[in-house]
Amino acid sequence: MIKTFTFSALALGLCFSAFAQEPLNTAAVQKIRTEGLDNSKAMEIAYKITDVAGPRLSNSPGLKRAQDWAVKYFKEIGLQNVHLEAWGEFGKGWQVDKYYAATTLPFYRPMIASPKAWTPGTKGPIKSEVILIKADTVTDLAKYKGKLTGKIVMIESATLQPLKNSYTPDAVRYTEEALEKMAAAEPQAAGAGRRGNFGNAGGNQRAMMLKLMAVRAAIDSMLLAEKIGLKLTYARGSHGTFFTSNGASYKLDAKPVNPELEVSSEDYLHILRLLRGGEKVELEAEVKTSFYDKDPKGYNVIAEIPGTDPKLKSEIVMLGGHYDSWHSGTGATDNAAGSAVMIEAVRILKAIDFKPKRTIRIALWSSEEQGLFGSRGYVKEHFADPSNMTAKPEHEKLSAYYNLDNGTGTIRGVYLQGNAAVRDIFQTWLTPFADLGAKTITINNTGGTDHQAFDGVGLPGFQFIQDPMDYNTRTHHSNQDTFDRLDGDDLKKSATIVASFVYHTSERAEKLPRKTMPTPAAPRQ
Amino acid sequence: MIKTFTFSALALGLCFSAFAQEPLNTAAVQKIRTEGLDNSKAMEIAYKITDVAGPRLSNSPGLKRAQDWAVKYFKEIGLQNVHLEAWGEFGKGWQVDKYYAATTLPFYRPMIASPKAWTPGTKGPIKSEVILIKADTVTDLAKYKGKLTGKIVMIESATLQPLKNSYTPDAVRYTEEALEKMAAAEPQAAGAGRRGNFGNAGGNQRAMMLKLMAVRAAIDSMLLAEKIGLKLTYARGSHGTFFTSNGASYKLDAKPVNPELEVSSEDYLHILRLLRGGEKVELEAEVKTSFYDKDPKGYNVIAEIPGTDPKLKSEIVMLGGHYDSWHSGTGATDNAAGSAVMIEAVRILKAIDFKPKRTIRIALWSSEEQGLFGSRGYVKEHFADPSNMTAKPEHEKLSAYYNLDNGTGTIRGVYLQGNAAVRDIFQTWLTPFADLGAKTITINNTGGTDHQAFDGVGLPGFQFIQDPMDYNTRTHHSNQDTFDRLDGDDLKKSATIVASFVYHTSERAEKLPRKTMPTPAAPRQ
Repeated sequence: MIKTFTFSALALGLCFSAFAQEPLNTAAVQKIRTEGLDNSKAMEIAYKITDVAGPRLSNSPGLKRAQDWAVKYFKEIGLQNVHLEAWGEFGKGWQVDKYYAATTLPFYRPMIASPKAWTPGTKGPIKSEVILIKADTVTDLAKYKGKLTGKIVMIESATLQPLKNSYTPDAVRYTEEALEKMAAAEPQAAGAGRRGNFGNAGGNQRAMMLKLMAVRAAIDSMLLAEKIGLKLTYARGSHGTFFTSNGASYKLDAKPVNPELEVSSEDYLHILRLLRGGEKVELEAEVKTSFYDKDPKGYNVIAEIPGTDPKLKSEIVMLGGHYDSWHSGTGATDNAAGSAVMIEAVRILKAIDFKPKRTIRIALWSSEEQGLFGSRGYVKEHFADPSNMTAKPEHEKLSAYYNLDNGTGTIRGVYLQGNAAVRDIFQTWLTPFADLGAKTITINNTGGTDHQAFDGVGLPGFQFIQDPMDYNTRTHHSNQDTFDRLDGDDLKKSATIVASFVYHTSERAEKLPRKTMPTPAAPRQ
Repeated sequence: MIKTFTFSALALGLCFSAFAQEPLNTAAVQKIRTEGLDNSKAMEIAYKITDVAGPRLSNSPGLKRAQDWAVKYFKEIGLQNVHLEAWGEFGKGWQVDKYYAATTLPFYRPMIASPKAWTPGTKGPIKSEVILIKADTVTDLAKYKGKLTGKIVMIESATLQPLKNSYTPDAVRYTEEALEKMAAAEPQAAGAGRRGNFGNAGGNQRAMMLKLMAVRAAIDSMLLAEKIGLKLTYARGSHGTFFTSNGASYKLDAKPVNPELEVSSEDYLHILRLLRGGEKVELEAEVKTSFYDKDPKGYNVIAEIPGTDPKLKSEIVMLGGHYDSWHSGTGATDNAAGSAVMIEAVRILKAIDFKPKRTIRIALWSSEEQGLFGSRGYVKEHFADPSNMTAKPEHEKLSAYYNLDNGTGTIRGVYLQGNAAVRDIFQTWLTPFADLGAKTITINNTGGTDHQAFDGVGLPGFQFIQDPMDYNTRTHHSNQDTFDRLDGDDLKKSATIVASFVYHTSERAEKLPRKTMPTPAAPRQ
């Protein structure tokens, strides 16, 4: 799941139609449940994606390993049209080849940190005093000129707060109360909750932030001109968990940047306190990173269970999740979990020898973390160009796209994404999974992931409601987003539910009702 | 606080006496509160002990730095008889000079880990496949003979469990209910709760554990004979927090051991899953450690505010806490916290220009973590030899010893350590601190730290009740036991309360009532 500061607006003007009682194939559900719950391969799949393939930053060798494995696996379980499909130009891949850093003064302590994505390494092993840059204005920088070459630096920040003890659990599941509140939600007005880049900051705060950003940019330019050895940046988190932020530019023509480490809060604050206290801090470090620009195109993994009904097989049911991750963990909850569930869902359908009426197509997107690029590129190529909302022929053929990208937490229901006409359908399809805790339908939108690429061009794209678990406290973009964070019970429940949703979407007499096509002027979703 | 598998037994046969209402000097309390709560230096002191001095493993340079700082500080604030006092022979100091380890296959990932205390480093930078040793019996080891030289190894363990999500908070404070339960506790019978080295394990389990230990010892011998490159050991913990276990031998004549890393659970389990899954895992590592055997003696820091009453100044009130720590964090909650509180308590008493009747003596113990050696050596030298319970002249002179060693959590009351005769005294002394949450007296013992050295020879030695916070979940012997874990409000409250207890103990007409001297045959406390 990408970090996002915008909330999806509800596209108004829905297509309504009247339904008879939505059919449910209970025999099929039973087969799916048996295969999904008693014979789950979800954790084996997740193991291959995380433990074996590793971090899967866009266009990195890790993502390539995971994509190659998925292609092989899809073929093994009998899917058709298995291929890597380019969605457009991404830019450079990148990976860490060596990370080592430790304070050597006032005493030796290895640092929990990570090179920031798409930054260069150090010029071999380096060792230097750490310089604390204090600058409220650009002119304050003059005093550092000529003094920083080869040095390790960090930037003073008055807003950094000491860490606090945590009196709340890392992991939570939705309570019945919270689910009832979601179910009772009213449709949001268009643009509701929409925020600019500075959230709801007032004019003064906005001006201050802009000034701060200008000073930070000037500092970075100076550090680059000075040819510093390494920049240390604070990474949110605690207890050895740290969250990586967005990386440097991955563009082929990206401007040079400083070597930079994102440092765990404890190690960063330790150095900061010492420097503020007037102690000398010395650090040694060696960072090696590699860039990959031979093939700048980005790829999704695509595979199908072809439809078998002569009239319906040209229609499509899609399911998917993004396969790329950040680099400091192994992207287990973000989003090997969702990927493994979707792969397992198609495995279940193959295992019960399902011959769908409509074609079932799975997509493992890439470059979600940089802006849903994989899904947006695919949607633009296959369905509609969101800049002019001109539909392509396939636009009419897609019944639904189901996405999973909110961590390991099991499915508790579905976000309707404002599409009230599917409420009764989904409610019926959820009925056999109430015992697994999945029963909630909310009209609400949810954002930050690939169903938005579909929803943005008027296609029924849905993300399931998932238990939050420790996604926000421990795993989302963190170094601790590893296989250990996955809950096998949760994954197998989710895969079972998704398989049944896909089954019923494929077999349904009609495609799912959809919202009207947005106008090109509609806000980007 | 040391790890302990034995619980203190209640020494029976208490000295009872009848008291008039215990006096309380409310004017002095007010002065102490003002200095302690409004002008606290506790966090500045803790900063020096943790951030500046660093890890303080027994006889390490870090402990020496911290001891030297304490000596300097005690002199600065006007204490007398400030000195390092040897308590006996400890053995070798040790520290980490370099730690680097990362998997290089199947992909690059730096490892969160630490050299195990008192183990040697690697022979320079090493790189090897990781070998998983599987041996249920000693004879199973034959197959590895001649194949492990220079290799990185880990030992298969069927008992290692996958990590679980945490649905409970890391940090907790005592509830009113829990405190009331402690207050209502009955004296424990002698030997109650006492467990052997295998806890309450039954005969079969005990036999299995002995067998397992024998196999483990045989494996270690073989690994040593094979001259392996490095051994990886599982360290409890999660999310980048790991807990170090007891180290190798620190004795001057310690037998050679393997280079060994204690590896965070996520990184260890990652490698274990890969090896079990048949993947090749390659690791590169470089570990440098140093041993210090020039002065094998162990030292406590001792300092005094001399008594001023001609009749009472030869009597002593002691306060203290252990100053040594484990090596992978900076020993903030274990036990810079307790040390800082005790140092701050004497600072408060000096700041209010207190001229005590009895002599106030502070002790910062060393080698607590290896078996309360510092306090036991001191007690044996000054008060009584526990092997024969023969009291020395100073035994009669000590009124009380107050200890603090249960983390950052503020004082909520006192453990009486079975000494019912002090209940009313302490209850009165706590009265002015009810608003700080300190009001509970429990007859219970608590163990695992230095007041036991005093209690064991019939001297009134007390440990305060402290809020548990995240001591057991995150900090006790962990790499994350850093300054960040300290709560300044808690430390200043605790120091204020201790200062007042010490004040009143010094001014009291009589020494505190004490339990009878244990017989030499009494169980070790």
